[in-house]
Amino acid sequence: MKLPNWMMVGLIALGLSTAAPAQTDDADANSVRAADAAWLKVYSAKDLTKSVAFFDEQGSLLSPNDPIATGKAAISKLVASDFAYGDLSWHIDKAGVSKSGDLGYTSGTYKFTSKDSSGKPAIDNGKYLTVWKKQTDGSWKVLFDMFNTDLPPP
Amino acid sequence: MKLPNWMMVGLIALGLSTAAPAQTDDADANSVRAADAAWLKVYSAKDLTKSVAFFDEQGSLLSPNDPIATGKAAISKLVASDFAYGDLSWHIDKAGVSKSGDLGYTSGTYKFTSKDSSGKPAIDNGKYLTVWKKQTDGSWKVLFDMFNTDLPPP
Repeated sequence: MKLPNWMMVGLIALGLSTAAPAQTDDADANSVRAADAAWLKVYSAKDLTKSVAFFDEQGSLLSPNDPIATGKAAISKLVASDFAYGDLSWHIDKAGVSKSGDLGYTSGTYKFTSKDSSGKPAIDNGKYLTVWKKQTDGSWKVLFDMFNTDLPPP
Repeated sequence: MKLPNWMMVGLIALGLSTAAPAQTDDADANSVRAADAAWLKVYSAKDLTKSVAFFDEQGSLLSPNDPIATGKAAISKLVASDFAYGDLSWHIDKAGVSKSGDLGYTSGTYKFTSKDSSGKPAIDNGKYLTVWKKQTDGSWKVLFDMFNTDLPPP
């Protein structure tokens, strides 16, 4: 988008990117996709500190079979429990960012491999939804992360 | 925020509200809270058509024990199944909207009352996360809705 100089000066004075007004929900969601991929990398490596650091200070993990966990201490307990229980991977399907670039989402499917009580491999397939908030330093952090299984009840 | 006239002309030419840059995620989330409340009202009344109409054309329902349902036909089947199975109510906890006002979220807890196979009342408690997208007519529609139980596995 080509803007007259006097308009650009106005936008820059307000701290707005000249690209922002033309951005749609689906275009330029690459930054939040990249955040999702970077999170997957540290999660797959079972790096607890780095995995939990992806959450916003006010972030919540909405995990099945547990109440809402808000804040890094409560989230850390759940993530540590997941790491001990099995191996998680996920595949991103959709991503989007608000026109203002401060709020985004990613969603897709996951695969969780563990062992049942008899030691046999057990595979859970499901889906996830993550809401991301842009921080003042420009990085994306997780405001909400939620998942549930596709499998029928046991 | 008081802006010089030449700046306001530039913003108006770009279709931006002069109020938007000052809005925070948590301020002025009333419109998305109102959408959540209006949805609860038609859902509680088990009005299938109105409940499904709250979804965006590209909206998805991420329901436990089923794959992702995208589009109104697939969503309608799941919602009809829920209506037949029991009574849902929910309580909103958090809501937020992007600075640009086009993307929002609501989250809270739900209670689902049904009867078990012996006819005894069964209560499920859990949580939900909804991502909302502002439509061209100014209304909020559901892009993603997801929930899971707080109860331990059966």
